[in-house]
Amino acid sequence: VAQAGAERCFGDQLAARVAARESQLVLGLDPDPRRLWPDATSGADVPAGPPGLPAADAAAAAVHAHCEAVLEACAPACVAVKLQLACFERLGAPGRDVLGQVAGRARRAGLLVLADGKRGDIDVSAAAYADSLLGATPTPFGEVPGLGADALTVNPLLGRDSLEPFLQAARRTASGVFVLVRTSNPGAADVQDLLLQGGRPMWEHLAGIVADLGRVGSAGLSDVGAVVGATAPEHLARMRELMPTTPFLLPGVGAQGGQVEDLAPAFLPGSAGGLITASRSLVDAGRGEPRADLARAARREAERLRESAWRLSQSL
Amino acid sequence: VAQAGAERCFGDQLAARVAARESQLVLGLDPDPRRLWPDATSGADVPAGPPGLPAADAAAAAVHAHCEAVLEACAPACVAVKLQLACFERLGAPGRDVLGQVAGRARRAGLLVLADGKRGDIDVSAAAYADSLLGATPTPFGEVPGLGADALTVNPLLGRDSLEPFLQAARRTASGVFVLVRTSNPGAADVQDLLLQGGRPMWEHLAGIVADLGRVGSAGLSDVGAVVGATAPEHLARMRELMPTTPFLLPGVGAQGGQVEDLAPAFLPGSAGGLITASRSLVDAGRGEPRADLARAARREAERLRESAWRLSQSL
Repeated sequence: VAQAGAERCFGDQLAARVAARESQLVLGLDPDPRRLWPDATSGADVPAGPPGLPAADAAAAAVHAHCEAVLEACAPACVAVKLQLACFERLGAPGRDVLGQVAGRARRAGLLVLADGKRGDIDVSAAAYADSLLGATPTPFGEVPGLGADALTVNPLLGRDSLEPFLQAARRTASGVFVLVRTSNPGAADVQDLLLQGGRPMWEHLAGIVADLGRVGSAGLSDVGAVVGATAPEHLARMRELMPTTPFLLPGVGAQGGQVEDLAPAFLPGSAGGLITASRSLVDAGRGEPRADLARAARREAERLRESAWRLSQSL
Repeated sequence: VAQAGAERCFGDQLAARVAARESQLVLGLDPDPRRLWPDATSGADVPAGPPGLPAADAAAAAVHAHCEAVLEACAPACVAVKLQLACFERLGAPGRDVLGQVAGRARRAGLLVLADGKRGDIDVSAAAYADSLLGATPTPFGEVPGLGADALTVNPLLGRDSLEPFLQAARRTASGVFVLVRTSNPGAADVQDLLLQGGRPMWEHLAGIVADLGRVGSAGLSDVGAVVGATAPEHLARMRELMPTTPFLLPGVGAQGGQVEDLAPAFLPGSAGGLITASRSLVDAGRGEPRADLARAARREAERLRESAWRLSQSL
């Protein structure tokens, strides 16, 4: 693990933001057009009744209104937003526009923006994804700006040389890269838990790559993070041992069954050592109630998660 | 391996298309706005000089013109086009529009459309990617059509349950899913070649998952394919043994050093058992020459590759 210089680095940015907001909570936005908050589909920004706009434009406008409302409710309790790229991509070009607008709204609310696309590809293609999400694309017509995310998720199956272009782009912009190490779904066991010769599971090997690639800033946190499902807390102490300075992105709390109380090892390198994502458990906290109550229930649940994670991190 | 019923299936579609076109060649389109064919940036469809359009619109128009010209030159020798999604995504919403237009143009030229995004995510997110690329997204405002690809590439790191939504969507539309098994980059060795307990490499385990998930059509080909880099031909016979009915997508011929002559095991289940992708080696075949010669050189190289692969497949 190399030591970063005086330049800005993602680990320092993350530590500062977590401290300022006293929050490790990441709002996951994965909008399904059929399950938006009611005002989003019937509100002022979207034509009611038989749509005057093509379906993609109308659905994108509704998704936009929904994300704004959820952000308004939950942002005060959060340090970052995690945008599930698939949910915006399926709305075509209007979905890409809304993705950029939602990212901008989150930034104005003081949140870091995490692009959750789990990308992974070889050299020039990985660089193109990095330009798209973190940097900009040089063209003969001028630079095309990317999403401007503060961090993204990547898939390490293609090996170190497929991660390098993401790291290079991230370091140019003091952004972070979160590498999948052990995901929160049951099928993670099929590949990530395979035992290697010598007896270590596959995810330990991935953890070693992550630890090796990261550069540690002055706050003691690396600029390469790991996605570690909160649904397998039994692995967390070992993860921390293998990746002592790595920020963990911890999906799976709430709807998928993970508990904040089990996540203590994440916070050993400091309060920003663990980021806890929640999406459906916030958006659906008041499911079935009118809009005002949906927002209130989401905010209450976000504040409850924020408080329990923050208290845990301060108690270590 | 289950047997598919009388319904249309991707393996049969692929076999029929390869036979009709006498080609296993896949044109890879991964346009870089700084390396387009000259007419694309100076042609009639793009404003010359100081751009009147924002950079993204102008670059997307140039990429569109380039892809049309390359398709016009190479399509007659090809059976499919492989669209590198990263290269379109980095141009934002205009890039997404052009992606759809290029896919439509390829279809009209008689080509199958392969969306190369190497996606992989958990349940609902994988389903969203599948809707985006193969199917459609139901919304209260009507259905939002996806890209309408005939096949896509996926990353299996998250396990079987992360592949299921892609398979389900693919089977609804008689499309195919190509799973990464052993990629063509040097770093593939870091993870895919890891030896498991018992001594098998990781890629053999992935090959087993692929063989297991596929359903074989009447042409003897499965609807789940494998991405197998042509840069490691020493593994190809073993791959074929483990995946006897699986169509192989073989990147790495040409610019990355792979040779058509080494790919015989791919064609053992039939002429459509191997698809050979080429991108830079076609587009750059006449690099430095004027447009007419670039097109002529690309077409000549495409025809050379088509002929050598077809001849090899017929000799077995």
